[in-house]
Amino acid sequence: MEQYEVQRLKINFKTLEHFENFREYGSQELSMKEDLEENIVENDSESPFYGVYFGDKLVARMSLYRIDKQFDRYFDPPQDYLELWKLEVLPGFQGKGIGNALVDFAKTQGLPVKTNARQRSDDFWAKQGFESVHYDPERDRGENPYVWFPEGVREQK
Amino acid sequence: MEQYEVQRLKINFKTLEHFENFREYGSQELSMKEDLEENIVENDSESPFYGVYFGDKLVARMSLYRIDKQFDRYFDPPQDYLELWKLEVLPGFQGKGIGNALVDFAKTQGLPVKTNARQRSDDFWAKQGFESVHYDPERDRGENPYVWFPEGVREQK
Repeated sequence: MEQYEVQRLKINFKTLEHFENFREYGSQELSMKEDLEENIVENDSESPFYGVYFGDKLVARMSLYRIDKQFDRYFDPPQDYLELWKLEVLPGFQGKGIGNALVDFAKTQGLPVKTNARQRSDDFWAKQGFESVHYDPERDRGENPYVWFPEGVREQK
Repeated sequence: MEQYEVQRLKINFKTLEHFENFREYGSQELSMKEDLEENIVENDSESPFYGVYFGDKLVARMSLYRIDKQFDRYFDPPQDYLELWKLEVLPGFQGKGIGNALVDFAKTQGLPVKTNARQRSDDFWAKQGFESVHYDPERDRGENPYVWFPEGVREQK
């Protein structure tokens, strides 16, 4: 399989322009744009987004956020973990293993990973080695949580 | 505008069959189904879902969950609030004010309401009197939070 280079995205006007091509564009992106426009963040500072470029074009991205151990309700033993969201590959670039490369990147950060699976994406997450956890209404509030356990880590009961 | 009767849905095999018609079908519904099959919940016990029927057909639904004051990070003063998700009107029944009727129901429970707006639904939520809040990455993790403030309630800073 082809290797794709996963890059941490820089916050700048070019990145934010790229973001407009993605379906899941919302408060997070708008807030980043505002912070940049109002000089609250430096141009080219690091974002929580990672992506894959084809030449100059951003064709896939995801957001990764490290959650502190004290808030961990998914893993046993409780520990810092990564929350992954907005994993998206642009139409025309799907089915090439790019989504897979992004998820692999997340899995090699040395931490468990949790995501909220979109409808009908169960097969994708199963292929990535993720498992669904027992649904807890108070914790999960309508999410479809899927998690990836590194060696020695289990579901929190 | 026509009046629609919003009903609290009962957990039973008929309701779960209806749920399969909705796009946002996931861990929550599967967990309800399992609990019913394994007699963990009573047939006809009350669910966190509310819906509108046309005759015998469930044409719209939402899930409402009361969040305890101690977890409130959206409202000032901090208080119990309702988290609303999976608001969905079946195709063919949209544009008739049914989604509006469900949201009105949520707003008349005497509590603030918070939801995670789907992409491109900002106009809908604005029409319902909801406002977006300042995006907090640690709290919101990629969500697009929209809230409805009753009289005397403000955004938590």
